[in-house]
Amino acid sequence: MNIKRRGLKMAAAVLFLMGLSACASVGPLRGTGDLGMIIERSSGKVAVIDTTTHKKLWTVGGLGDLSHASVVYSRDGRYGYVFGRDGGLSKVDLLTGRLAGRVMQAGNSIGGAISQDGAMVAVSNYTPGGVRIFDAKTLAPIADIPAVYDGGKRSKTVGLVDAPGNKFVFTLYDAGQIWVVDMSDRKHPAIRKFKNIGKMPYDGMITPDGRTYIAGLFGEDGLAKLDLWNLDKGVQRILNGYGRGQKVLPVYKMPHLEGWAAAGELLFLPAVGHHEVLVVDRRTWREVAHIPTHGQPVFVVSRPDGRQVWVNFAHPLNDVVQVIDVKSLKVIKSLELGPGVLHLEFTPRGEQVWISVRDRNVVDVFDTRTFKKIAVLPVDKPSGIFMTDRAGKIGL
Amino acid sequence: MNIKRRGLKMAAAVLFLMGLSACASVGPLRGTGDLGMIIERSSGKVAVIDTTTHKKLWTVGGLGDLSHASVVYSRDGRYGYVFGRDGGLSKVDLLTGRLAGRVMQAGNSIGGAISQDGAMVAVSNYTPGGVRIFDAKTLAPIADIPAVYDGGKRSKTVGLVDAPGNKFVFTLYDAGQIWVVDMSDRKHPAIRKFKNIGKMPYDGMITPDGRTYIAGLFGEDGLAKLDLWNLDKGVQRILNGYGRGQKVLPVYKMPHLEGWAAAGELLFLPAVGHHEVLVVDRRTWREVAHIPTHGQPVFVVSRPDGRQVWVNFAHPLNDVVQVIDVKSLKVIKSLELGPGVLHLEFTPRGEQVWISVRDRNVVDVFDTRTFKKIAVLPVDKPSGIFMTDRAGKIGL
Repeated sequence: MNIKRRGLKMAAAVLFLMGLSACASVGPLRGTGDLGMIIERSSGKVAVIDTTTHKKLWTVGGLGDLSHASVVYSRDGRYGYVFGRDGGLSKVDLLTGRLAGRVMQAGNSIGGAISQDGAMVAVSNYTPGGVRIFDAKTLAPIADIPAVYDGGKRSKTVGLVDAPGNKFVFTLYDAGQIWVVDMSDRKHPAIRKFKNIGKMPYDGMITPDGRTYIAGLFGEDGLAKLDLWNLDKGVQRILNGYGRGQKVLPVYKMPHLEGWAAAGELLFLPAVGHHEVLVVDRRTWREVAHIPTHGQPVFVVSRPDGRQVWVNFAHPLNDVVQVIDVKSLKVIKSLELGPGVLHLEFTPRGEQVWISVRDRNVVDVFDTRTFKKIAVLPVDKPSGIFMTDRAGKIGL
Repeated sequence: MNIKRRGLKMAAAVLFLMGLSACASVGPLRGTGDLGMIIERSSGKVAVIDTTTHKKLWTVGGLGDLSHASVVYSRDGRYGYVFGRDGGLSKVDLLTGRLAGRVMQAGNSIGGAISQDGAMVAVSNYTPGGVRIFDAKTLAPIADIPAVYDGGKRSKTVGLVDAPGNKFVFTLYDAGQIWVVDMSDRKHPAIRKFKNIGKMPYDGMITPDGRTYIAGLFGEDGLAKLDLWNLDKGVQRILNGYGRGQKVLPVYKMPHLEGWAAAGELLFLPAVGHHEVLVVDRRTWREVAHIPTHGQPVFVVSRPDGRQVWVNFAHPLNDVVQVIDVKSLKVIKSLELGPGVLHLEFTPRGEQVWISVRDRNVVDVFDTRTFKKIAVLPVDKPSGIFMTDRAGKIGL
């Protein structure tokens, strides 16, 4: 073959390969159902991981202050919306590792949610106090809901979740209120306010069926419960003894309500100020057991089949993860992983659990049947782990 | 520009485009979380649909006899494994609309399952009676489990599901047995057999937590229940009155156990031989209500938030779908869709329901809040509809 021909052949090959990787909308095909995102809390980045190969696909930077951050997914599982502490809202493309959109939408934020139909993303802001809602495709603003109370004051908002019927529910920390916003007509958000729900509600969550919203109270004992099927009944107090500790904890040490686990007929939740997991009957809301643990529980996470509950703990005892067997209500395993176990999450059918160990700069992956470590991924100061099956789950 | 240069530019463009669409592993990127598959029962094809755009992406043919067919998904949501009546096992790539693999693995089959870890696909066969297990990537055979009983006879197998711990559970129709197969060591399947579970168990299902396996009995009343957390307790009989009808139905008219819905604390199931939906307390297994309906219910499907249950009916009253409000336990809507309503399925967060209307050759899509029809897709003699969020669900 002469030089000219060889040159042409090479040019052809180069063009072909350029075509292969042409633009951000074409690339190697893969499903999105076995992916996840892990927050790198110091560097302002997220790692995109694959739970089939146990590998990192990409690290995506430029996401601002992720010292407290969370993620929700687009309904197709392709995009993660990252809510940063500094008010940043970033749309990350898991399939390309690129930033598909980003807005600085407030001064100080704490979390977010995606609507039932996937068309809207909402962010829960401290400054200015209120909730802002954006188009999930373009991040263009749709609605602004200032958390105004008592003649003009603005409250921090927390505990923002989506609910069936294209609603959002959130809590006003300073005002002691819960608001339910119906966005089915997005030009006319319909807000229903529930006042005097309790003192300094610092967090909120919704049950997996999207029916029951619960707010934790920092200023008093017990929790506030709102049945979204029976709004006219208003907010009720449950678990009156919850929160009673020998000493008052600072609010940032109060348990995340996301750190509750439903397993069968039972709810498992962190005790406050005690080294215990409380076990509550879901139907009656009565406590049925308490299980002594290594430290103050932070996240109490049920394996998807409800047979085990895995628990991590607050500083300084945050070097261990314990496993509770739901059938016997006993701790059956203690794993010493190293300091800074910040979060843990299961794969959708529960065969693996992924655990962030901040001070070792790794995420450990365990087989939940054998408790064998099956992989270790280098991740810089990892915190929250979010699997893509959250895309199809109410409230997540 | 001279002709030679223009020719070179065109060649470059062609090569570039060829690169773009080079092979089955590269293409336009998209997530898999908002997709689904619909069986075209007469033509041996499946339609791949997108629930965000309400459009068909592809129709994939060559799948054999799909007169009774079902689908499970790979753990990444990219592939659908289609189990055909004629023993065909087909692996369909939702991202390309191509067949990624196909085996004729038996003479006559009724359904299948995917293992918890996604590595194995199992098929439930009538002929030869037994279960065969294949590698989910390559479809290479892994194990063959003949359903042998009573000194050499082979039984039809039905009700095949996956269970936590990389197990499969299935029922032997002729033998009246339930088998639990532990595939954690795939070279040595460990089989545990439960005998004398009842007469002619014709179908089986597992609860969403993967704990309770239930088999329907054609030859007598009641159902057989096996608690996978307490295998030593063996099989128990529940709902003793279930099945008692004025006349004996042929077995193909007995309700699919997949046609049961869990909503909150309740289970909704088709009555047998009556135009009613039965409501059972999940904790006590006692009947708490029965709701009169348009016809003999076939599939009773809960909206993901458990607030509504949608019901289709058996021939000749299969032209209507009814909606039960779970809070009031009343029928609140009757939709007249035309003859041949064969199946219905919700999107993951429940805002849409997709309904197969065979005799109109369409799938109707409804908004579950307003009951407005939002789309109609032409699909040839549609039957089963399977959304990709099943990829992450135990037992589906």
